[in-house]
Amino acid sequence: MTITSPALPFDPAGIQLDATRGLSRGLYQALRQRVLDGRLASGTRMPASRDLAGALGVSRNTVVRAYDQLYAEGFLQGKVGDGTYVAVLEAPAKKLSTKLSTGLSMGFSTGLSTKSPENTGFSSSKVIHSDAFKLLDEHHISPVRSGPPRAFRVGVPAFDLFPFATWAKLSAAFWREPDPALLGYGDPAGDPGLRALIAAYLRSSRGLNCTAEQILITTGAQEAIGLCAQLLVDAGDTVAVENPGYRAAGHAFANAGAVLKGVPVDGEGLVCAALEQIHGCRMVYVTPAHQYPTGVTLSLARRLALLEWAERNQGWIIEDDYDGEYRYSGAPLAPLAALDRSERVLYVGTFGKVAFPALRLGYLVVPPALAEAFSRKRAVAMRHSEIGTQRVMARFIADGHFQRHIRRMRRAALARRDALLQHWPVDISGVGALPTVSAGLHLTIPVQSLAREQELVSKAEEAGVELNALSHYWLSDSEEPVDNRAGLVLGFAAVDETATAAALTRLRQAWR
Amino acid sequence: MTITSPALPFDPAGIQLDATRGLSRGLYQALRQRVLDGRLASGTRMPASRDLAGALGVSRNTVVRAYDQLYAEGFLQGKVGDGTYVAVLEAPAKKLSTKLSTGLSMGFSTGLSTKSPENTGFSSSKVIHSDAFKLLDEHHISPVRSGPPRAFRVGVPAFDLFPFATWAKLSAAFWREPDPALLGYGDPAGDPGLRALIAAYLRSSRGLNCTAEQILITTGAQEAIGLCAQLLVDAGDTVAVENPGYRAAGHAFANAGAVLKGVPVDGEGLVCAALEQIHGCRMVYVTPAHQYPTGVTLSLARRLALLEWAERNQGWIIEDDYDGEYRYSGAPLAPLAALDRSERVLYVGTFGKVAFPALRLGYLVVPPALAEAFSRKRAVAMRHSEIGTQRVMARFIADGHFQRHIRRMRRAALARRDALLQHWPVDISGVGALPTVSAGLHLTIPVQSLAREQELVSKAEEAGVELNALSHYWLSDSEEPVDNRAGLVLGFAAVDETATAAALTRLRQAWR
Repeated sequence: MTITSPALPFDPAGIQLDATRGLSRGLYQALRQRVLDGRLASGTRMPASRDLAGALGVSRNTVVRAYDQLYAEGFLQGKVGDGTYVAVLEAPAKKLSTKLSTGLSMGFSTGLSTKSPENTGFSSSKVIHSDAFKLLDEHHISPVRSGPPRAFRVGVPAFDLFPFATWAKLSAAFWREPDPALLGYGDPAGDPGLRALIAAYLRSSRGLNCTAEQILITTGAQEAIGLCAQLLVDAGDTVAVENPGYRAAGHAFANAGAVLKGVPVDGEGLVCAALEQIHGCRMVYVTPAHQYPTGVTLSLARRLALLEWAERNQGWIIEDDYDGEYRYSGAPLAPLAALDRSERVLYVGTFGKVAFPALRLGYLVVPPALAEAFSRKRAVAMRHSEIGTQRVMARFIADGHFQRHIRRMRRAALARRDALLQHWPVDISGVGALPTVSAGLHLTIPVQSLAREQELVSKAEEAGVELNALSHYWLSDSEEPVDNRAGLVLGFAAVDETATAAALTRLRQAWR
Repeated sequence: MTITSPALPFDPAGIQLDATRGLSRGLYQALRQRVLDGRLASGTRMPASRDLAGALGVSRNTVVRAYDQLYAEGFLQGKVGDGTYVAVLEAPAKKLSTKLSTGLSMGFSTGLSTKSPENTGFSSSKVIHSDAFKLLDEHHISPVRSGPPRAFRVGVPAFDLFPFATWAKLSAAFWREPDPALLGYGDPAGDPGLRALIAAYLRSSRGLNCTAEQILITTGAQEAIGLCAQLLVDAGDTVAVENPGYRAAGHAFANAGAVLKGVPVDGEGLVCAALEQIHGCRMVYVTPAHQYPTGVTLSLARRLALLEWAERNQGWIIEDDYDGEYRYSGAPLAPLAALDRSERVLYVGTFGKVAFPALRLGYLVVPPALAEAFSRKRAVAMRHSEIGTQRVMARFIADGHFQRHIRRMRRAALARRDALLQHWPVDISGVGALPTVSAGLHLTIPVQSLAREQELVSKAEEAGVELNALSHYWLSDSEEPVDNRAGLVLGFAAVDETATAAALTRLRQAWR
């Protein structure tokens, strides 16, 4: 990372905090303002949170929270093992700073400010010597790796099998003679026809008894999660997230001013007992069908406990069913939204894992009482989504292509999963046993230590194989010993069986 | 509007305000929470801002600000002349409540809380007896009127002339064999190819010397404005807006917690001297090319004064060039962004007025130092936009269709403008003279009084002609005498010359 030199020493004395506006928020605003107006130059080294807290006479948490927010928004980035710096915002440095600071904000936004030893421990190799960050970015915010899918990219379905000819035909059919009534300003909640089809699909495929009025079409799952954060989270609120978990969701909540609390995940999924211990928490984000990234399915007992928690606390559950279409064995459990009797669950769905991510088409199913407020919020944010993609998807579903394609994708993912399980090098030291994979598009394998995880990921990268470090999916202030966080996360659907076998051959050689 | 009865009397005693979190924000949060968890039932009548302020021992502004925010988010709505109520959020009531509450939140969000007499004066007729609200919604947030364009809908170009066959061909061509590298997760700032083409277009057509790195592709202009609000406005900040002006922009700023201050507009556009009087204001939203809705062009002297203001105050100028392609006579002045030497201008552009609104494709040109932060913010909000529309538009521009279409649209808008000017009934009492229309897609005609404005709009509506009341474009706490705010706003591009002439014939009869 190029640091603008000379990096000015940063003088916290200039900061006036107004207690009536919230100290942490005030500090965040003061620092952000200084970055925007240039008083804090790019590359300026920020004091450690403890030092700044001392200098300002505020608690260290106040500083950590402000730093985290600045990370999430890209104003700060880290030079691993070397502290925290004002992001390099100059356009020429963009690509580079995107890669580094995004990777860092994903992996260690909290870690850098809390200076957990493990971060300096392994991350420098990531930032400076390997491509793992670019991979990490792939399924987090602000991806930088382009190029066709590779083994074992996470978050990418077998879109080489998508019926593009059909999609092209339907697109042309829509655009040749669109109904003029559809070309002006539409319903902020989305095309009524598509919403009705999604409601019908969720009723039949998920037992989710919802109406079209409860459905909001979004620009992918990320916008759906972000809308929940904007409308239901106030600055300073505590939001519980699975740990390890989907960091991009955490960033959406942090962006709305939430304080993130990690909740452990065991063989039954999110540990509700731990959630109960988080004082004043009224929102939790979960991936019940296939926990991201561990792959655990939330047990029915836990589902009921979670719903009971929400009802008792008048809380909200954000249920992200990001890959619910992929179930290979065993009956799928009913989504929380289908079990919800007290209208506390907001269900997030996406077409990205059945079609392809760049379609950016997702949806949110909200309790009837919230539908109007969400629709209004979205109207103020962007009015509504582009009409063509919505109408073409509606036609794609109505004509039966969608259901056919889901079956095709499930078969393909299963075959690709089997290719991975069959060719996986079983005799690698420090690598745990393969899990049973009954759902989803990725699997997670435990590794004995963080050091070993990093070594395996780096060697794989040198052999041109994308592996993800499980340690990156943890909040860095986790109490879990760092070696217990180590593992490998592999997406198995991105490439076909032949490419999968070939990648595993390269991997075996690289790891020898 | 159906009010859930019995409407419970609202008891403010339950509200505990925490001064350390901001009183207005705290009150807003407390009220919102009560609506969400049902403690404040739909239809509950809210106390007048003055009474609630008294009961809570806070300033009336504190209450007004909280109410405004709740309006913008749809939690409150008004029964005109009868106070403020908790919105009817039940799904069955959706359509109705959308129409009413949105109309109100557009027209009178401030008015209702400040109880300006003029609101009760004319708005009851709007809500209860006429369709004018639905029209108003059309070009504001959350439109409810569907159906093909009619005379004289505002904000709608002559999209009956859009080359849909070409667009369909290009769409099919892209989707038949898309590059797999484009189907995963892309650049949050948008497709690099499209951004480069937009930069080239702005350089040649606006003299705006920008690079692709400064351009952020957005879901229409509304998202571009919203991103500026989210990234550059802190809760409680003052944002100056043109008055009369584009209310949907004001809502985006209010949504980010801004306090809106109206700045008068005269024959030279926004009155900079009045802006200078607004203490502590560091952001202004302007429509320099063709002030919305008055149609005035911001003079060069004012442009330079505005830039000087921004530089002196380290402030930001949001320049919305929503219909800059439509210039019929006289040389267009350079956009503020082209004159900006101190990187204080953020330029908003859209394809909605050249193609059609439902395409939801717009862009933001930001100073180089802000590009990274905006890209990051958008990544957290939604990752990026759908790829197909971006690539098809890039092809549409690269192949020259775009420039050809702009010329076609300009000719059409000019012919439709002339049809309006030629057939306009000149002898209607209380209606001012037609203005000279040298730019844009709409014109504004003064009316002698608010009562007369309402009468003309209602009669037009009965004759199936969409007219907009200029009074709706004013902030309702304006000092301008209400009769000075009266006028008619007509879009002249939505339908062709024949339909325009026919509508004016109906109008003449209706007004006789």
